Amino acid sequence: MPTNRFSRRSFMNCGLTAAASLSLFPETATAHRPAPDESLLFIGPLKGYSPQIGTLVSMLNYNRDTIVRSVKNLTMAQLDFLFDANANTIGSLLLHLAAVEKFYQVNTFEGRQEFNEAEKKEWNAAMELGDAGRKEIKGHELPFYLDKLASVRQKTLAELKTKDDAWLLAVDPVWSKESKMSINTYWKWFHVCEHESNHRGQISWLKSRLPGGKPAKD
Amino acid sequence: MPTNRFSRRSFMNCGLTAAASLSLFPETATAHRPAPDESLLFIGPLKGYSPQIGTLVSMLNYNRDTIVRSVKNLTMAQLDFLFDANANTIGSLLLHLAAVEKFYQVNTFEGRQEFNEAEKKEWNAAMELGDAGRKEIKGHELPFYLDKLASVRQKTLAELKTKDDAWLLAVDPVWSKESKMSINTYWKWFHVCEHESNHRGQISWLKSRLPGGKPAKD
Repeated sequence: MPTNRFSRRSFMNCGLTAAASLSLFPETATAHRPAPDESLLFIGPLKGYSPQIGTLVSMLNYNRDTIVRSVKNLTMAQLDFLFDANANTIGSLLLHLAAVEKFYQVNTFEGRQEFNEAEKKEWNAAMELGDAGRKEIKGHELPFYLDKLASVRQKTLAELKTKDDAWLLAVDPVWSKESKMSINTYWKWFHVCEHESNHRGQISWLKSRLPGGKPAKD
Repeated sequence: MPTNRFSRRSFMNCGLTAAASLSLFPETATAHRPAPDESLLFIGPLKGYSPQIGTLVSMLNYNRDTIVRSVKNLTMAQLDFLFDANANTIGSLLLHLAAVEKFYQVNTFEGRQEFNEAEKKEWNAAMELGDAGRKEIKGHELPFYLDKLASVRQKTLAELKTKDDAWLLAVDPVWSKESKMSINTYWKWFHVCEHESNHRGQISWLKSRLPGGKPAKD
């Protein structure tokens, strides 16, 4: 029945995707049916973090899992595939996610508004995408991108373990003054999270249009 | 400087986008610089909701604002533009967001696993997308889509006002049994939220490739 497909599609696309990939999160792969706060499909407070930060981390973990699974088994040629002259490759989008997370680390953990010279050299093309990304980000196998993502995320989680909910909810006076709106740390990290979904939508669109790829609904 | 562009790009893309559009959220447009919990760039507890539900609502509000702004001023022809035979139009993606949110209302507020007959008739094509969406979803101006999104969201927020954090964190025994993982209400509504980001990425991709549209970085 169509309505079964409704719930099943939504569920299969979002639920089982994560359910089937616990091995990507060894700390959660403790059982076939992990405790609630160890399930990627449980959003809420997480052991080792303050309540609101744990909830954020459960979102970051779930979203990251969907990204990693969406690019599983892609070849270098597929990661480097350029759909058109203005497109970004799937590989560059993956590195972009790591670069944006790195910037928010620098901003929220170190209070800097800019990358230092070494960071610019490493992340410039991935932050900029466009021509710089198309020129510099290519010729890497999938593990290169997954290792970059995992390395940046490892630092994020280690730092978040040392913070509390007051830090997460605190308003940034600098950004708030510039935008004339209150902007807090939680927004910055929620953006890092939902920004992955934004580009996952583009990755799935590009994947379904790879040479020889099978058409997808989106 | 490139690094200024780093922070500025991330900020402009995400922060000011919402900052400039408070009028879309009259309840938050009480001042040029609203109180923290009235700012779209403040993620956290929100007046009128339990703490975790208010935090979720602040995410739903921010993400919805980015969607509404991303399609501002699109014409019917642009909303109906089909990039290729397997693509979805921007209009169908907007209606899909409303349909998915409607399904999670039915599931989490009414405990149903399926749409009823009237709901199937209204939402079938938008849930399915693909051929059904391409055939049935066309010929509407932007207000048609924005009204559908706003109408569904209005019910979501009204229902969430009556719920508490225990409800949001509660594990669904039916879905958890099917996936052999704990799935809670918060995951379902976080998915409704991040699912909008997923399709916003596709909408921005399609927008930059509309006939006569200006190329975008993504």
